[in-house]
Amino acid sequence: MSEEKENIQFELSDELIEQVEILVAQQNDKELQKLLNEFHYADIAEILDELDLEAAMYVIKLLDSEMTSDIIMELDEDNREKVLKNLSAKEIAEEIEELDTDDAADIIAELPEERQQEVISHIEDEDHKAEIKELLAYDEDTAGGLMAKELVKVYETWTVAGCLRRIRGQAKDVTRVHSIYVVDKQNKLIGRLSLKDLIVAKSDQKIADIYISNVDSVNVHDEAEDVARVMQKYDLEAIPVVDNNQKLLGRITIDDIVDVMKEEAEKDYQLAAGITSDVEADDSIWELTKARLPWLLIGMFGGIGAATIITNFQTVMKDYAILLCFVPLIQATAGNVGVQSSAIVVQGLANDTIKGEILKRLFKEFVLGLVNGVAIAFVAIIISHFFFKTEYLVSLTIGAALITVIIIAALIGTFIPIFLDKRGVDPAVATGPFITTSNDIFGILLYFLIAKLILGF
Amino acid sequence: MSEEKENIQFELSDELIEQVEILVAQQNDKELQKLLNEFHYADIAEILDELDLEAAMYVIKLLDSEMTSDIIMELDEDNREKVLKNLSAKEIAEEIEELDTDDAADIIAELPEERQQEVISHIEDEDHKAEIKELLAYDEDTAGGLMAKELVKVYETWTVAGCLRRIRGQAKDVTRVHSIYVVDKQNKLIGRLSLKDLIVAKSDQKIADIYISNVDSVNVHDEAEDVARVMQKYDLEAIPVVDNNQKLLGRITIDDIVDVMKEEAEKDYQLAAGITSDVEADDSIWELTKARLPWLLIGMFGGIGAATIITNFQTVMKDYAILLCFVPLIQATAGNVGVQSSAIVVQGLANDTIKGEILKRLFKEFVLGLVNGVAIAFVAIIISHFFFKTEYLVSLTIGAALITVIIIAALIGTFIPIFLDKRGVDPAVATGPFITTSNDIFGILLYFLIAKLILGF
Repeated sequence: MSEEKENIQFELSDELIEQVEILVAQQNDKELQKLLNEFHYADIAEILDELDLEAAMYVIKLLDSEMTSDIIMELDEDNREKVLKNLSAKEIAEEIEELDTDDAADIIAELPEERQQEVISHIEDEDHKAEIKELLAYDEDTAGGLMAKELVKVYETWTVAGCLRRIRGQAKDVTRVHSIYVVDKQNKLIGRLSLKDLIVAKSDQKIADIYISNVDSVNVHDEAEDVARVMQKYDLEAIPVVDNNQKLLGRITIDDIVDVMKEEAEKDYQLAAGITSDVEADDSIWELTKARLPWLLIGMFGGIGAATIITNFQTVMKDYAILLCFVPLIQATAGNVGVQSSAIVVQGLANDTIKGEILKRLFKEFVLGLVNGVAIAFVAIIISHFFFKTEYLVSLTIGAALITVIIIAALIGTFIPIFLDKRGVDPAVATGPFITTSNDIFGILLYFLIAKLILGF
Repeated sequence: MSEEKENIQFELSDELIEQVEILVAQQNDKELQKLLNEFHYADIAEILDELDLEAAMYVIKLLDSEMTSDIIMELDEDNREKVLKNLSAKEIAEEIEELDTDDAADIIAELPEERQQEVISHIEDEDHKAEIKELLAYDEDTAGGLMAKELVKVYETWTVAGCLRRIRGQAKDVTRVHSIYVVDKQNKLIGRLSLKDLIVAKSDQKIADIYISNVDSVNVHDEAEDVARVMQKYDLEAIPVVDNNQKLLGRITIDDIVDVMKEEAEKDYQLAAGITSDVEADDSIWELTKARLPWLLIGMFGGIGAATIITNFQTVMKDYAILLCFVPLIQATAGNVGVQSSAIVVQGLANDTIKGEILKRLFKEFVLGLVNGVAIAFVAIIISHFFFKTEYLVSLTIGAALITVIIIAALIGTFIPIFLDKRGVDPAVATGPFITTSNDIFGILLYFLIAKLILGF
């Protein structure tokens, strides 16, 4: 690779961490600053995540607050909590002065309640303070919780030249100008403009003549997930947020939406795998145990339930002990089908592609279960008959049980997430161990009932 | 809700679809255009996805190509394929003239190879044609496959005023100006500017004096997933793409990255649930069966494997038939632990948070498995002893088996994804039925071996 190529892929190496640790230990501030100034704040956050708290605090106190405020935003949540505990309310307020209102409100919201007021009282910029207080009032999972107050807005009565002059002032506070929002005298959002439109227009034109009146917006109380869906569908990079009277309150940018999407996807994935959300591979054993053990206990009680069922049938079916050998087959199939069905429904609900009646959907799953069930049962009957030399009626039992179990598992896997969603509960909790465990029990019960029916023990 | 509030949430209703169908049947072009012109192209695509092909083609031929090119991009892939089949090479070329180079190349890449050349030959704009041909040469999963050629670039020697004048021309071709890229005489990327910087600057300043030399870029051969990670980490909305000599080739925008992230997350989720990727809730039963049945077959062979193991132990353990009742418990636990471990590793690999040696990670999983195993075994022993009145040695067998199985399942669930990743295989295939099935078999085998050891049958 050529020397000249700038390598964007920052690689966190043990050597680099050690180098930082040594410089901290030596209190070699000059070298430390020289070293760290080379890196992006997101990279420095990665380094600090690996240091012990004392060393991390040393670095944070060394660098200036313009840099550290961004670094603190990028830290792992656990580490951020520790760092904030080690800063005085005044120091936190200083960091917050450097942040955009949305990030500032997020940081304050993470603090214990008694500290929140203290930190807010130390913010010197009164406008910033008022805006942050406004944002703190919104639920974090709504558009209001995501939006920032920083935006560029112009009045329809302005001229292009006047507009360019005035937005120079506004734009300084805004990291990136996505869109310029056009409002009327009542601060109602009536349209948008891009900087490009403004540059391409003649300087004596009125904004009223050049703005685009077709502007997407979300209501401040809309759910974050819905905002994400809208921005993604319409390929938007920013969206203005309005109140019920269409008054412009703030704007949401795509980078925050990317974070929402990622969190949402990770949460669903973890729930499907039976992990309480928000753990990572490098969390402590205690945290990982807290996230995993409860789900294993659910599965364990499912296993105990299955054992209870089997003991109840055991004595009566002594003559057909071979049936017990196929319990794992029934159980695995029920679990797999349930997870498939629930995953498709959860994803369909998330993407808003599940339309129509619940009965129509259950009927589709019924047909699908029947098709898959017949195919699986056919193969299983052949194998049990020729390979395990089971009697005809036993093979029939296994086949009939597989078909029934697959259909029932598919219906349960479909119904529960839709039901939860209608009740306002996140349907993703129904995936994973929850669905496999209930399907294990249902599957095994059905298996023995069908066996009793066919074999008549 | 007030009348005034613009509702961004487009709701696809049966009435609307029916209305469109009736207007198509009546060939009422005027009303149809009036109706559809109200909607965003992404919404029209949703409507067309619900129509039959003939009606969809009618609408596409009715609307003008500036609109239809965007609609076609937004259609479901299956429907797009059908629509493109029904258009002549010349008609496709006309649609493509309206699209940005990245979308244009994506559409052409979806066509059968013999049609690709034909369509390209019909593109009239020679620059557009050359750029599309260049993009087609890149692998679709690389930065080159994602980038568009449309961008705004300026030379460091220009003045701000000259720059503003000249980029007016370039900007017309670019839907959104994220950044202005600064190049030297050799077209090497040396920095960036935002439109904001340009507007805030004095008009006689030189670009060389105001540009930001610290510019992130990706290599044209970098993997799409890595580009997504970088853009997300550094909160970028666009990133320039360069070749090995740092020459500016194109740029990637965040909306394409959002799509990459979403596809990636959905694929991982579906693999974990045992569904071949790329199916949706509203796909046909045949497509859903194709996506689901193979995984059920894997699970079925696992069940057959378990049955084989049990039959081999069945006769020798007649005295301890109670052990068979706990097979579902062992199996469910092994499966759940395996899925948990593999999910954490897969997510850690995706987020690049898995660092350090594989042995260190396996050791951590070992400790974690031991902690969880002892907890689960403790509860299970209590329950089996007091509730099922099992003998001491049988309870001990169940407990010892649970601990062993949890540890082994955790190790397998951790090792396989890391191994696959090192081999360049997507580790997500190791999640779901694959890991549960192998853990089912290992778990049951271990259970009986431990029983044999303790109970000595």
